[in-house]
Amino acid sequence: MAQRFVVVMAGGSGTRFWPASRAERPKQFLQIGDSGETLLQATVRRAAALVGKDQVFVVTNARHGEPTREQLPDLPADNVMLEPAARNTAPCIAWAAGRIRRRSADAVIGVLPADPHIGDEKAFAAVLDRALSAAEGGSVVTIGIEPNRPETGYGYVDVGDPAGDGVNHVRAFVEKPTREKAVAFLEAGHYLWNSGMFFFRADTILREVERHLPELGEFVTKCDDAAARGQEAPFVQDAYAGLPKVSIDYGVMEKADDILVVPGSFGWDDIGSWSAAWELARKDGDGNAHGGGEQLSVDSRGCYTTTREGKLVALIGVEDLIVVDTGDALLVVPRDRAQDVREVVDALREGERGEFL
Amino acid sequence: MAQRFVVVMAGGSGTRFWPASRAERPKQFLQIGDSGETLLQATVRRAAALVGKDQVFVVTNARHGEPTREQLPDLPADNVMLEPAARNTAPCIAWAAGRIRRRSADAVIGVLPADPHIGDEKAFAAVLDRALSAAEGGSVVTIGIEPNRPETGYGYVDVGDPAGDGVNHVRAFVEKPTREKAVAFLEAGHYLWNSGMFFFRADTILREVERHLPELGEFVTKCDDAAARGQEAPFVQDAYAGLPKVSIDYGVMEKADDILVVPGSFGWDDIGSWSAAWELARKDGDGNAHGGGEQLSVDSRGCYTTTREGKLVALIGVEDLIVVDTGDALLVVPRDRAQDVREVVDALREGERGEFL
Repeated sequence: MAQRFVVVMAGGSGTRFWPASRAERPKQFLQIGDSGETLLQATVRRAAALVGKDQVFVVTNARHGEPTREQLPDLPADNVMLEPAARNTAPCIAWAAGRIRRRSADAVIGVLPADPHIGDEKAFAAVLDRALSAAEGGSVVTIGIEPNRPETGYGYVDVGDPAGDGVNHVRAFVEKPTREKAVAFLEAGHYLWNSGMFFFRADTILREVERHLPELGEFVTKCDDAAARGQEAPFVQDAYAGLPKVSIDYGVMEKADDILVVPGSFGWDDIGSWSAAWELARKDGDGNAHGGGEQLSVDSRGCYTTTREGKLVALIGVEDLIVVDTGDALLVVPRDRAQDVREVVDALREGERGEFL
Repeated sequence: MAQRFVVVMAGGSGTRFWPASRAERPKQFLQIGDSGETLLQATVRRAAALVGKDQVFVVTNARHGEPTREQLPDLPADNVMLEPAARNTAPCIAWAAGRIRRRSADAVIGVLPADPHIGDEKAFAAVLDRALSAAEGGSVVTIGIEPNRPETGYGYVDVGDPAGDGVNHVRAFVEKPTREKAVAFLEAGHYLWNSGMFFFRADTILREVERHLPELGEFVTKCDDAAARGQEAPFVQDAYAGLPKVSIDYGVMEKADDILVVPGSFGWDDIGSWSAAWELARKDGDGNAHGGGEQLSVDSRGCYTTTREGKLVALIGVEDLIVVDTGDALLVVPRDRAQDVREVVDALREGERGEFL
């Protein structure tokens, strides 16, 4: 069996979890809900259980190197790859695939976003195992999430003919749909949510990169040369910012000849807003939940609060509210308007209040 | 003209402004609304403008001596009187009246609670002047506030016959009424709110104390003796906790032969809850107001927020909420339920969470 690796993409810079998420501390570094570990820690833990921690790589922006290493003290230093600049997912994946190929010529790689929630870890592991196995034969494989609602916030995978053992051909990748289309997708039954997880042999993806993104293919070759001279770090430092800013979806997947999809159902949630934090947390009898700190509720229902340890949030007579308290900023918003946090972030940007961003 | 003095009673231990008010920092030490001064500072400033700061005395519990002196650095040290124990208002007023009589035999004294809000300071000064003048003749005088609503949270003064120059006899003091009675009082037109402010000559009140509370009268005499020997402080330290716990209203006023009342209308508010903080603060176009810190509101109306300087409270899509953020506790409550803060305080007491009280 080919040696298996996981690349965790931790490049997020999301503002949907303001004021907890900031420029210096994006979503993947947060504990959302009440799990006691950050999203990044949970993703790496699940990956390490599957392939072993020496085979787990994390790619993140250089400015986030410190929190990444702090949160993952057990990961080998060489496995934390710091991007000198944000160039979207294709350069990040190509760079990691090159490094992994140098370590193991027949490596098979799973690429996972750092920040989704996985409700059923056992089912998740089984689906990942199936996807890695399918990728060993030389295919590019993705995981499609079985939808339970007509979600307009995700891209979809249109599932085609069977390719054996719980794997199908992808007919097409579909952009985020309108509400009407999303309802039709749910009824049609052969559309899955695009999970953003991809699986391939290192040589497969690098061949696809050379074919569709030759400039990036050249970068990988030069990385190999530089690494042979022990000069990879300075080379990447110089060259990375000049790479094309392109996603693996657009740059490679949509152009590849044949992609396979493994359908999965394992309580996946991309945690798009504070509303999801409430949904994922354990609730009391009144439907209230909290992340950090304490909560004391009087005649209140459906609320989520989070603050620092040792601090108390008292709620009286309120419903379906989210209260997020950090050192220098405090947010109060109804659960069903949690996505409007961006309006605050926009206002702070316009007001040049960088200290709060 | 007799020398005029003011005694400010700062004995509050209120919990209605939790989490800003605590056992160690009652309401009078807070900035409520957006005035930039605490309630105690505002009361002393108004009193000093009327009688001069050397003639303003503040009586407070010994445990609050430090914040009192910090907030009133210009007050002579001898004018801050620290009660060794809380004994309600009669002992506090008798003790202060005794000290003032030693300074000026024909002193006339106004006694003011430390923590009401006064909207029209010019009108307030005129009414106080009238009340002090009326007291010079040897009467006990109170101020009655002209009611603008059928308030059930205050006591009332039933106004009797005129006693000349904007002063009337008090027919009776009336306890907090039912809603029905409060409506009838408002219609009747001769009921005023009991402001808790009293005016009298020092010798008048001390004669009344000797008559109705002989034990307390004896305490004042012994204070005079001890002060003559330079031993007032140790004497009070020993004797104070043994004094009867009785209010000036119950112990003296209700038993006095003739009390006069000066009607007043000067934007008086006893600031009974956080709701009053919103009412008194300057609002933006959406009816939002804030005490400390910053506020950023998106599609929100009628809210009041207060936090530490340098911290931002962001509101999205909420209405008529109060948000009070302190170092270790945070309160969220609708404005019309602000009085229910006591339920949180009760729960904390029951749970023996003294660190939050």
